[in-house]
Amino acid sequence: MKNADMKEKLLESFRELAKNAPIDKITVRQISEKCGVTTQTFYNHFPDKYELVHWAYQKRLDRLFKELESGEIDFKTFLRGYLSDYQTNSAFILNAVANTRGEDSYSTRGGRYFCESIERETCRVLNVEELSLEYKLLIKAYVGGFTNLILYWLSNGDEISIDDMVTALADAVPQKLKDDYVKRNSKSAKIKDSKEFTKNHRIISTHT
Amino acid sequence: MKNADMKEKLLESFRELAKNAPIDKITVRQISEKCGVTTQTFYNHFPDKYELVHWAYQKRLDRLFKELESGEIDFKTFLRGYLSDYQTNSAFILNAVANTRGEDSYSTRGGRYFCESIERETCRVLNVEELSLEYKLLIKAYVGGFTNLILYWLSNGDEISIDDMVTALADAVPQKLKDDYVKRNSKSAKIKDSKEFTKNHRIISTHT
Repeated sequence: MKNADMKEKLLESFRELAKNAPIDKITVRQISEKCGVTTQTFYNHFPDKYELVHWAYQKRLDRLFKELESGEIDFKTFLRGYLSDYQTNSAFILNAVANTRGEDSYSTRGGRYFCESIERETCRVLNVEELSLEYKLLIKAYVGGFTNLILYWLSNGDEISIDDMVTALADAVPQKLKDDYVKRNSKSAKIKDSKEFTKNHRIISTHT
Repeated sequence: MKNADMKEKLLESFRELAKNAPIDKITVRQISEKCGVTTQTFYNHFPDKYELVHWAYQKRLDRLFKELESGEIDFKTFLRGYLSDYQTNSAFILNAVANTRGEDSYSTRGGRYFCESIERETCRVLNVEELSLEYKLLIKAYVGGFTNLILYWLSNGDEISIDDMVTALADAVPQKLKDDYVKRNSKSAKIKDSKEFTKNHRIISTHT
């Protein structure tokens, strides 16, 4: 079995067990047994169960960022995909949020990874090696608000549509970031078909 | 002794004790004894120690919002005051953040109160009874980012100046909120001396 396939299988078992127990009470032995493998096999793939939780998040986010970076999707579609993933996995995610602490905390680790991903994407768009402190603080503020709003939504999900959430998360992008994306994209438009550009590259400027 | 004075004294004792112990390990008896009063006196003022922590936050925030609402200070001055308060009390606040959980959580309760205060102020500025879902979500996102950034700053305080933080927190205000504040303030300017208006009412539009 391929590495990635085994990781998927372990995640699937963990998700099943998490339907009936808080994730901090589920053991690596239980996950491995449900999966029909030894604990050694588990440890060949993950140092602990929290890495497995984080891996699931990383995997979803990486896929979306890859599509965003390639111009395949715009920022609103990115947001919609992110929210759909959360909605599909809401029980597991709320379990993980409620039952992880400190350095293993779902929000802390996820937020940090999301920050790094947006920083990398912003570096790419602005064509710089490193971001200024100003940008880093703005991104940190945005990601904190993003995380806060999504957790609120998952806990009160029935009242708020995905459309309303996409609008709010797009509108909450600090104007300075939007402006620089627009400026940058206007430059790169010269070498692109203008219709394609409009379709693919309204990355963060979707709501101005 | 006046009610407010006794509350201040209890807070002072709590702060002293919190220099040497996590706040979840400090008892109401210890706070009362340090203050030279009975536990009954404590309970006449607060149902538990977490209410005392929250009261300290509320008091600081209420004062700043009062000055903002009266036009005495603009939004950047508001931010500067908020950050100075945090810096002065950073050891106590970090202790409270690290050692409160669930419904008593410092970030959760503080964030909720901050949200309500901004909602009230936004209702006043827009002259409406209730905010639309769109506004509520935007405010929730802003407050989440605000809280996140301040906690980061308190933990890494020496590296980031108050000026940089004020700029970031002003820039992170969603443009839609800024625009509506500007619009509203432009209208109210008609009945005000224009110089006074410029001085006092650049509430949230300080960085456009």
